[in-house]
Amino acid sequence: MKRFEIPVGISARHIHLCLADLEVLFGEGATLHPIKTLMGGQYAADERVTIVGGNGRQIEAVRVLGPLRGDTQVELSKTDTMFLKLQAPLRDSGDIEGTPGVTLVGPKGQVTLEKGCIVAKRHVHMSTEDAMNFELKDKDLISLDFEGERSATLNNVLVRVDASFTLELHIDTDEANALDVKPNQSVVYEA
Amino acid sequence: MKRFEIPVGISARHIHLCLADLEVLFGEGATLHPIKTLMGGQYAADERVTIVGGNGRQIEAVRVLGPLRGDTQVELSKTDTMFLKLQAPLRDSGDIEGTPGVTLVGPKGQVTLEKGCIVAKRHVHMSTEDAMNFELKDKDLISLDFEGERSATLNNVLVRVDASFTLELHIDTDEANALDVKPNQSVVYEA
Repeated sequence: MKRFEIPVGISARHIHLCLADLEVLFGEGATLHPIKTLMGGQYAADERVTIVGGNGRQIEAVRVLGPLRGDTQVELSKTDTMFLKLQAPLRDSGDIEGTPGVTLVGPKGQVTLEKGCIVAKRHVHMSTEDAMNFELKDKDLISLDFEGERSATLNNVLVRVDASFTLELHIDTDEANALDVKPNQSVVYEA
Repeated sequence: MKRFEIPVGISARHIHLCLADLEVLFGEGATLHPIKTLMGGQYAADERVTIVGGNGRQIEAVRVLGPLRGDTQVELSKTDTMFLKLQAPLRDSGDIEGTPGVTLVGPKGQVTLEKGCIVAKRHVHMSTEDAMNFELKDKDLISLDFEGERSATLNNVLVRVDASFTLELHIDTDEANALDVKPNQSVVYEA
């Protein structure tokens, strides 16, 4: 049996914007300003927006990730969706058909989405070479063991393989808090 | 192998008060007004308070549980502690030495605690008879399997046995959201 350590990345709530929504929120001709490079050509932008639920509750300063996408997508924790009283389903990124919308407020305007709110399924990014070492392929589901006082095994972790990916598990803040994940923690996978 | 189903109870953030703090928050001679009976002689009270973190952030309408205790204790999720920027440790209920305080605000006054904030360790309550059936004793640690899309196994679940207890697993809202626990869900224990 081979034993691999996978670094854990915690995804806080964030938003991907389409061009039309960017211009409504930040003004005509607005562009995103990268402040931190993420894997696969993505980046955290300086831009942030406020999310307003149908119940009037707000979550402020939600980070926008770039580059722009074809559709606006809002990735929330289940704790967030309960706070906003929003029935957002557990989905893979990009799969937003039939999901609820929400209102976004930026410095120049606001937009009410018809769809786009999801709770992102946990997943592990790996390079093609990592996948060969781990004997895994894209879209496999694996189980991962977390140590510590809130020790647990998470099942149904989706494997995503791409030449541009760096090895990293992505879980959301609910999962990280439920498992009391510490900064720079790794998780063990046994192939 | 015997297989048991254990009902899952989700503990939202809540507060236990001592008499002195009750009177500061709700006025001299105040008493708690039960609205819902819980196990082991406890109840949810009609009274609610606001928690204010050192960073000025507030969580409103936090439920008080009765009866009164010798020490005030604030049970939060880790998500709450990060929102309030509070270093509350993972503890068993009642074990509050060395934990951080917080400010509580009620309709008649406010109190700044010197200690009392914890993230409660998950635990399963069972009667003496259940414990015999399960072949478990007080303070054992067990693992429990959760089904569903966010399927997982939680380890280090503390067993608490008392003649007055009804069989129920208590997890907090982070754990319930991370595992996407549905209303009235049960969890499987194999003895």
